[in-house]
Amino acid sequence: MGKENFADKLLDKINVFKNPTCIGLDPRIEGIPYFLRKKEEKIDKILFNFNKMIIDATCDIVPVFKIQMAFYEKYKERGIKALENTIFYLRKKQKIIIIDGKRNDIGPTADAYADAYLTKEGFDADAITVNPYLGSDGINPFIEKAIKYGKGVFILVKTSNPSSKDFQDKILKNGKRLYEEVAKMVNQWGRGTKGKNGYQVVGAVVGATYKKEAMILRKIMPKSIFLVPGYGAQGGSAKDVMVNFDKNQKGAIINNSREIIFAWQSSPYKEKFGPQKFDMAAREATIKMKKDLSCAFQI
Amino acid sequence: MGKENFADKLLDKINVFKNPTCIGLDPRIEGIPYFLRKKEEKIDKILFNFNKMIIDATCDIVPVFKIQMAFYEKYKERGIKALENTIFYLRKKQKIIIIDGKRNDIGPTADAYADAYLTKEGFDADAITVNPYLGSDGINPFIEKAIKYGKGVFILVKTSNPSSKDFQDKILKNGKRLYEEVAKMVNQWGRGTKGKNGYQVVGAVVGATYKKEAMILRKIMPKSIFLVPGYGAQGGSAKDVMVNFDKNQKGAIINNSREIIFAWQSSPYKEKFGPQKFDMAAREATIKMKKDLSCAFQI
Repeated sequence: MGKENFADKLLDKINVFKNPTCIGLDPRIEGIPYFLRKKEEKIDKILFNFNKMIIDATCDIVPVFKIQMAFYEKYKERGIKALENTIFYLRKKQKIIIIDGKRNDIGPTADAYADAYLTKEGFDADAITVNPYLGSDGINPFIEKAIKYGKGVFILVKTSNPSSKDFQDKILKNGKRLYEEVAKMVNQWGRGTKGKNGYQVVGAVVGATYKKEAMILRKIMPKSIFLVPGYGAQGGSAKDVMVNFDKNQKGAIINNSREIIFAWQSSPYKEKFGPQKFDMAAREATIKMKKDLSCAFQI
Repeated sequence: MGKENFADKLLDKINVFKNPTCIGLDPRIEGIPYFLRKKEEKIDKILFNFNKMIIDATCDIVPVFKIQMAFYEKYKERGIKALENTIFYLRKKQKIIIIDGKRNDIGPTADAYADAYLTKEGFDADAITVNPYLGSDGINPFIEKAIKYGKGVFILVKTSNPSSKDFQDKILKNGKRLYEEVAKMVNQWGRGTKGKNGYQVVGAVVGATYKKEAMILRKIMPKSIFLVPGYGAQGGSAKDVMVNFDKNQKGAIINNSREIIFAWQSSPYKEKFGPQKFDMAAREATIKMKKDLSCAFQI
């Protein structure tokens, strides 16, 4: 994808599709229809075929896909093969690819992770999620590679899960919450990485389930793109996620995994499509999400 | 290895070898002697052959090996193959295997990571390092699997790098540092997981470079095994790491990666062994480290 600024690439793509949705490719085996599991013996084929059908059914609607590493690592060598094939396919379809790996380490090790996910010698995704607990030493190697290769980084700031409060919400001596301090650093780390749209290549993960916190975080990080998990299955509504966008309704991508890729398992899609047409169920759920988001924008 | 308590298994093994050293298998390509890189074309063979020679040269001295995931992920499918072969070989040699992956996610995703690293269907290591930023939701799935399968978890508490201060050292409203709060939680998470030696299967990563902090952390987590990085190349001395042990000189493992596996690159090993005998250089460095640690114990 060349060295175009990642934030520009992402925002332009969202503009083209008029859709800030990101589909999460988390192929849990129990959500893959049985006919796909029987047809092929090998797990890499099963995972890839499932992903491919989801991608084919939704790629004219959605600009961004997020890959959850855990569900590939679980199957070791074969899982990684499925991952490589999925990335290759998404690339062919000219999609933006975010690796959700929440990687974190220091110095040469962080460098190796950045090489693994953000370079042509590695998986060559467009962006990766990174955990900030280790501080700048663990973040800078990712940002350096991101700048060099036209890639992006999303730092975990306030995650969507209930126990994100355990540490992220801790009140510091200065009266701020820990997530606010992390956000302040994200804003600093991103300095000098802005593209023509004014956004930095250092983004933030901010859960859809914490509306009040998202409003605060949008102010601290006015120029970071928010990657927003927790929409749908975890309880975040279209109205909830609106606060993650800026006043021009830009600067956020809303992820949905389960409610799209496993739509076929629950009503009303279950009755209408069943397992055989799981991909069409995913398509309809994707169209519904796009509509929900665009309605919320007009409030 | 059955369902024996991980803490017991680890402490017993350290007792047998009278050595709390853990060798870090971080096979950075630039540290692998050229003759190994030329002999084989394929990267999985190169990484595995390097690891195998290090293991063969040190496994009669050292009970524990730690695998840094980044250096395998970097080579995608082939890297993972090298990882699988390395684990298989370490298992054959009856070593304790710690995966340093610093994984972190929530609910079913954390479950998938735990499956990946702590079960027979996955890589089947003995323990994994986990990042606590997401709170209990991200930790409990690992602990459940650890209890079920006789495995261990090491939670990052105070890491060895300079910028660990960025967030880990933040002073909270209650006057405590963030790392102290994390340590308190580690102690709680480990409740009910003690083995016959009185240690919990929920351990902590505490850097060798922060002696004062380690003393505080030992008090907060009296029954957690400390995995101590930062010895040697990062500046931690044998005296520095003594505070990580309990009063019976138990309950810690000291990791060393670079100074052992790449000993052949620096004096005095460089002159004595050169690249051809890099494994013998690693052996001598391992013997030296064991001696340094045992001398420090007698102070």
